[in-house]
Amino acid sequence: MAQKPSIPKGTRDFNPTEVAKRNYIIHTIKAHFERFGFQPIETPSFENSETLMGKYGEEGDRLIFKILNSGDFLNKADAKAYDSKDSNKITASISEKALRYDLTVPFARYVVQHQNEIEFPFKRYQIQPVWRADRPQKGRFREFFQCDADVVGSSSLWQEVEFVQLYDTVFSALKLEGCSIKINNRKILSGIAEVIGAQDKLIDFTVALDKLDKIGEEKVKAEMLEKGIPQSGIDKLQPLFSIEGDFGSQIDQLKSILNTSEEGKKGIEELEFINNGIATLGLKTATLQLDVTLARGLNYYTGAIFEVSAPEGVAMGSIGGGGRYDDLTGIFGLKDVSGVGISFGLDRIALVLEELNLFPETITNTVKVLFINFGEREAMASMKAIKQLRERGVSAELFPDNKKTIKQFNYANKRNIPFVVLLGESELESETYTLKNMISGEQDQLSFEEMLQQLS
Amino acid sequence: MAQKPSIPKGTRDFNPTEVAKRNYIIHTIKAHFERFGFQPIETPSFENSETLMGKYGEEGDRLIFKILNSGDFLNKADAKAYDSKDSNKITASISEKALRYDLTVPFARYVVQHQNEIEFPFKRYQIQPVWRADRPQKGRFREFFQCDADVVGSSSLWQEVEFVQLYDTVFSALKLEGCSIKINNRKILSGIAEVIGAQDKLIDFTVALDKLDKIGEEKVKAEMLEKGIPQSGIDKLQPLFSIEGDFGSQIDQLKSILNTSEEGKKGIEELEFINNGIATLGLKTATLQLDVTLARGLNYYTGAIFEVSAPEGVAMGSIGGGGRYDDLTGIFGLKDVSGVGISFGLDRIALVLEELNLFPETITNTVKVLFINFGEREAMASMKAIKQLRERGVSAELFPDNKKTIKQFNYANKRNIPFVVLLGESELESETYTLKNMISGEQDQLSFEEMLQQLS
Repeated sequence: MAQKPSIPKGTRDFNPTEVAKRNYIIHTIKAHFERFGFQPIETPSFENSETLMGKYGEEGDRLIFKILNSGDFLNKADAKAYDSKDSNKITASISEKALRYDLTVPFARYVVQHQNEIEFPFKRYQIQPVWRADRPQKGRFREFFQCDADVVGSSSLWQEVEFVQLYDTVFSALKLEGCSIKINNRKILSGIAEVIGAQDKLIDFTVALDKLDKIGEEKVKAEMLEKGIPQSGIDKLQPLFSIEGDFGSQIDQLKSILNTSEEGKKGIEELEFINNGIATLGLKTATLQLDVTLARGLNYYTGAIFEVSAPEGVAMGSIGGGGRYDDLTGIFGLKDVSGVGISFGLDRIALVLEELNLFPETITNTVKVLFINFGEREAMASMKAIKQLRERGVSAELFPDNKKTIKQFNYANKRNIPFVVLLGESELESETYTLKNMISGEQDQLSFEEMLQQLS
Repeated sequence: MAQKPSIPKGTRDFNPTEVAKRNYIIHTIKAHFERFGFQPIETPSFENSETLMGKYGEEGDRLIFKILNSGDFLNKADAKAYDSKDSNKITASISEKALRYDLTVPFARYVVQHQNEIEFPFKRYQIQPVWRADRPQKGRFREFFQCDADVVGSSSLWQEVEFVQLYDTVFSALKLEGCSIKINNRKILSGIAEVIGAQDKLIDFTVALDKLDKIGEEKVKAEMLEKGIPQSGIDKLQPLFSIEGDFGSQIDQLKSILNTSEEGKKGIEELEFINNGIATLGLKTATLQLDVTLARGLNYYTGAIFEVSAPEGVAMGSIGGGGRYDDLTGIFGLKDVSGVGISFGLDRIALVLEELNLFPETITNTVKVLFINFGEREAMASMKAIKQLRERGVSAELFPDNKKTIKQFNYANKRNIPFVVLLGESELESETYTLKNMISGEQDQLSFEEMLQQLS
């Protein structure tokens, strides 16, 4: 019996128009990555499980897609787990490979594995799909593309400056104007935790603070209290909740909060360097904003933390993020290699461009001209002309069957093919081509060279 | 403890040079696919298992990578298979998804699922990775790219003509001259089987015939005899083993062999149409050759069968293949949609181009110019110049750290960066840039516009 075809939850087919739109974004990102000196690498879709497991926390481990071993895998299954039917414990013994969960851990693995072939600082970009067994929702899929640029092997803050420029450049090139590039620094968060006496509760503290936008000041405070942060500490936070003004004046307020924390002061210094660089160099259409509540994958980042929001009025989570991580490659045995990087969220960017109607109208990958098929002799003559057009760079095709002309015209219309050529008996005789512009309806009888000119 | 990093057997990392080389091939193929009127689609990396299983034979089923269900998958495992520890039988109950094995079955699924949005004939191309749990060997990997172009919805033989042209065009554009495009037709093979009284042994017959190149005439005959093909039938095959000459004279010999088979004569007619089209239109550098032993995935093809060999002297299996299949979408419930398509073997093509040294020397994705870092003030001035260069389309970067100049030059050398800019105190004063050509060693003190000109 025939199956009713479908695809797995959270995955997508892309039709030619969708592919063209996605490629428009990818090509824009790539072009600017390369202009900024990043070079592409590619890593396998699946990695050895031990490369990925334990790198993304318990939740991450759960969301990693595991690949079943080939052959008689049950034969090698962990006997105890098998007897107790423990899905969790049996996994490692029946699955040795897993699909890439992000591009960062495979990149760290790559750097360590190929460290002797790499010149540091190593500026790489990588645009590949990743897979997560997450619950699908708007803008979140089980297969999606990440577009990452990272530098490893230098702790220079010029790189943070460059990444802010890179975000601004790419989003401006995509005509997505008015994005907010939010920046924070792990050292600021550590400093604040220190000042309020919650060093040992840094995670709880930042998780709560990160929710300020969503749940408001009072609930954030309540959560902190609940997590064991003393009321006296929370009181010291008060200035943080009312922090405002431009980058410089926010920095000043932070200075007064953090004046007793060495780490906090270091964080301020870093922020000032980046802000100063950006102020001097200028941004095209985005703005750089300090956001002391920004935490993201805190455990991971050790310095700058970035996140990009779409222009105001567009309801969409972050469309990019990143930061500095001082010891990513340590997990694979290469110590003291500082890294910093950013990621572009392709799928969400596509949704935003769609919503704001920002895809250029010229995006298309439709063939330029269709030759109507009037039968074998005419088709052969058409194929000769088509061959020459293609050699001159014009995409062209013959309607393969000698169907009614109206049907062939309908096909051209529905596929949005802009030109149609009629090469019938009379044209064959006069060695001309009747070229019809499908948009204007205009029709001309032309020589090959004249036709070529119109199509080029 | 730190893990020694590695990647799964049969998979590969690609460094920037390798990515550039692969992209060169992919871009060439894509450009010509589009010039021939094909449009890109993309399908998910994994499909529902029932979409893939049973489509590639028993061997294929075994080589498909299965994805383990998330959560407590053992809880839903087939109880009987679990009790008998039957890996094969339990699979369907603990794995609902599987990695794409090729691009053809997902394409058939796509066409059926989206049939109401598609204009037929539908010319699509698809360039995506596929995965097979095969034993890795030279030119064969567990993750590799397929580059497919297919047309569904028309049985016109002009399409076969076009695919021969497409192979010739792409390989000529890659400077891989002298490829053999071998062609056969399923109807010829059926006709021969009919003539020798082995209709019911078509598969055994073609499997044996397919080995002619490798094991020779006598062993092929022995195998046929062993499979139950009568000696009298094998005797009738004799002319086939000595078939020779150009396309036309081979066709004549086939005609005498097949004069009693209607199907065989139909196959000859099709071959003649294609050969006639190609003879009239001409090929650039490849040759079209009739190969009556060519069978490939016979069960699959119903008309033309294609296979491309690299130029003589290159030891490499086929670098492309394809054919016509009259009922591919039938398995998903859409009957009577004829299709024909070809595939390019990206990895093998890359190996061949490498072996013959055919990659253009200009392939690179290295940054054009590196600015030496002389400290904070000079770096800021460099960043200003770099920003302007990038805006004019020149890829440029600042060495992020103020290290010894010799180290920065070494970095530029090892990364093959063609230009270096020195922007030190004296240049800052005179508002000039010292541009050093790293290949010639030449060095000039230039204005920004002069520098831009040299770098453009």
